[in-house]
Amino acid sequence: MLIVHKYGGTSVGDLKRIKNVALRVAKAKQDGNNIVVVVSAMSGETNKLIDFAKYFSDNPSKREMDMLLSSGEIVTASLLSIALQDMGIDAIAMSGQQAGIKTDNFHTYARIETINPTNMLKELDNNKVIIVAGFQGVNKDGAVTTLGRGGSDLSAVAIAGALKADACEIYSDVDGIYTTDPRIEPKAKKMDFISYEEMLELASLGAKVLQNRSVELAKKLGVKIVAKSSFSNGDGTVIGEEIRDMEAVLVSGIALDRNQARVSLRDVSDRPGIAAEIFTKLADEQINVDMIIQNASSDGLTSLGFTVPESELSKAKEIIENFNHDIGGKSFDSNICKVSIVGVGMKSHSGVAATAFSALAKENINIEMISTSEIKVSMIIHEKYAELAVRTLHSVYKLDR
Amino acid sequence: MLIVHKYGGTSVGDLKRIKNVALRVAKAKQDGNNIVVVVSAMSGETNKLIDFAKYFSDNPSKREMDMLLSSGEIVTASLLSIALQDMGIDAIAMSGQQAGIKTDNFHTYARIETINPTNMLKELDNNKVIIVAGFQGVNKDGAVTTLGRGGSDLSAVAIAGALKADACEIYSDVDGIYTTDPRIEPKAKKMDFISYEEMLELASLGAKVLQNRSVELAKKLGVKIVAKSSFSNGDGTVIGEEIRDMEAVLVSGIALDRNQARVSLRDVSDRPGIAAEIFTKLADEQINVDMIIQNASSDGLTSLGFTVPESELSKAKEIIENFNHDIGGKSFDSNICKVSIVGVGMKSHSGVAATAFSALAKENINIEMISTSEIKVSMIIHEKYAELAVRTLHSVYKLDR
Repeated sequence: MLIVHKYGGTSVGDLKRIKNVALRVAKAKQDGNNIVVVVSAMSGETNKLIDFAKYFSDNPSKREMDMLLSSGEIVTASLLSIALQDMGIDAIAMSGQQAGIKTDNFHTYARIETINPTNMLKELDNNKVIIVAGFQGVNKDGAVTTLGRGGSDLSAVAIAGALKADACEIYSDVDGIYTTDPRIEPKAKKMDFISYEEMLELASLGAKVLQNRSVELAKKLGVKIVAKSSFSNGDGTVIGEEIRDMEAVLVSGIALDRNQARVSLRDVSDRPGIAAEIFTKLADEQINVDMIIQNASSDGLTSLGFTVPESELSKAKEIIENFNHDIGGKSFDSNICKVSIVGVGMKSHSGVAATAFSALAKENINIEMISTSEIKVSMIIHEKYAELAVRTLHSVYKLDR
Repeated sequence: MLIVHKYGGTSVGDLKRIKNVALRVAKAKQDGNNIVVVVSAMSGETNKLIDFAKYFSDNPSKREMDMLLSSGEIVTASLLSIALQDMGIDAIAMSGQQAGIKTDNFHTYARIETINPTNMLKELDNNKVIIVAGFQGVNKDGAVTTLGRGGSDLSAVAIAGALKADACEIYSDVDGIYTTDPRIEPKAKKMDFISYEEMLELASLGAKVLQNRSVELAKKLGVKIVAKSSFSNGDGTVIGEEIRDMEAVLVSGIALDRNQARVSLRDVSDRPGIAAEIFTKLADEQINVDMIIQNASSDGLTSLGFTVPESELSKAKEIIENFNHDIGGKSFDSNICKVSIVGVGMKSHSGVAATAFSALAKENINIEMISTSEIKVSMIIHEKYAELAVRTLHSVYKLDR
């Protein structure tokens, strides 16, 4: 089997941990697999380099920042290769460029355009373990680019796709994806499998493991991800294509997002384009609007509600203030949270939402906003009910079984 | 004018010093010059990375070491570029690869084969200050190589040659080349000019400033070097082509090398090839033989003397022991030193050596070995006379005037 491993900053946080990773990789190789390893910078290194740059400039050029920060992954890759070679494993370290990763020109958040796997395939033919510096590529001018947050995961998934690897194992300090946050519901269970679609909807549950960009890329390239812990030996959680034959699990997990604030607008003039105008202004300011609800219009007035990240509420407020002539009443509430039920099984089963509503009603939890997609039901509730709602839903869908 | 600056590890030893370098570069640019800067790693960084590697292996692969260590210069180059940009100077950082530096495949001591200046010329046309990560290049497989000790000087000289720069200014913590070591002879004077040939012979005087490989390359490419201090504003010392028109200075400087040991062999069989055999064996063990003296043979026996670096004496001893049947007597002496008089003026003047011999004789300093070249006279004397001999010679050739 050809397997891509990816180890994040915590997993390679110091020399002892890099040694530990080397032992894991050596074991996987000795088990008869071909291995490509993608590594992040040692945790702390990237921040150190950012601090260095800030000493010279409040707004350092992105091209230079990419060149600076990419050195962190180069160091880890070289060291891991040296560690493996010392164990008698034939290894070779590669920069993103050497691994053939070509990106667009958007420094600090570049997108991978192509991967030329010639170098990697040659060294795999030589039976070598390849260690690739994650998070980085090179643009058509030969300048180093970086891929933004979660960039090493992206490197790993893209490489797995380019090499048609059997799996892409993403190692972190958690041992998989859980049915909900175990700090809230101790009965939360690690899932053996979750579909790409569910994983995307459960982003907050997987936030510490991998980001949506990587899941989207894996879905597009058909790469099987396995989320595993680098500190233990569990099987982790497989993230892959929905298996249609198996009896669909109705609900896979419950996600909680506390970082939400609600904007409610009453008595909004129902003239054409007013909603578009508001949301264009918000988008211009890079404010990320999540849920949007508009009530049916009556007597020329309508009501409009939406949520934004809590940190962007004050910017949103400012924008809304400029719509005074069109809006009768406004309220802003940051004491809310979003609870989501996710599961591919919902697609073919009705009644999933109804079960949630009645379970929460039984606990006297008022649902302030609702939005639904094919595989998700999200509800805005008062923040004080966050944990109770998660536990109630986790239990009513029998996720602890 | 197009000027290449090179700043070593001490000059960029911390963030404050990098800022100081940025100010110097900005000044040179604002004076109307085109500037290319070559930088080393921040002092201490390279050793830290070597320690990291040693944690994993006593004998890390050279290819991986090159990749690891090259990151240090990348960091400095990025930071200096950021610092300059913040001052409003349009700057761009480049790795050795981006600067077009191609080397052979000998990792950790690669030689520069060619420089493709296309990238640099384009950015100079854009009126940018170019910051190049020194010490590194790339081989034909795209792997990063490093150039060994003094590698950043080599990068700077080679770039100056490729760009036909007007000068290559090498900055360090000393302000030029002195007629002798000022710690020994406080009357030593900074030279305004020294020829490549003299500089090569005076290597020990320039050891802290630049290494012979760089001087040789500068001579070959016709690059004018200026050795300057990054901590003060003197004119430094120009190292360039001998100016034949000017009245030749008889002697330029006095060099002292304490790191020498003498091997004396008496009653050596005068059969053909015995010397070759001895020196081949020494060369096989990488022992650097410096002076060699063989006395005229009489009655089939000869005597042979040579010097080796003190640190290699014990290895040399071992080899010599295996020649028992051919050598009557051996002695080894590490309490010696080598004093050298250097000057292009010697070429056309006789009597330079005689002046030295009689000056030392007057001080009762016995000369144990002598070797001469066109522009150098080297003498082996007892180590205890080292400082006295340097001061005597410095004075007899009027170098303090």
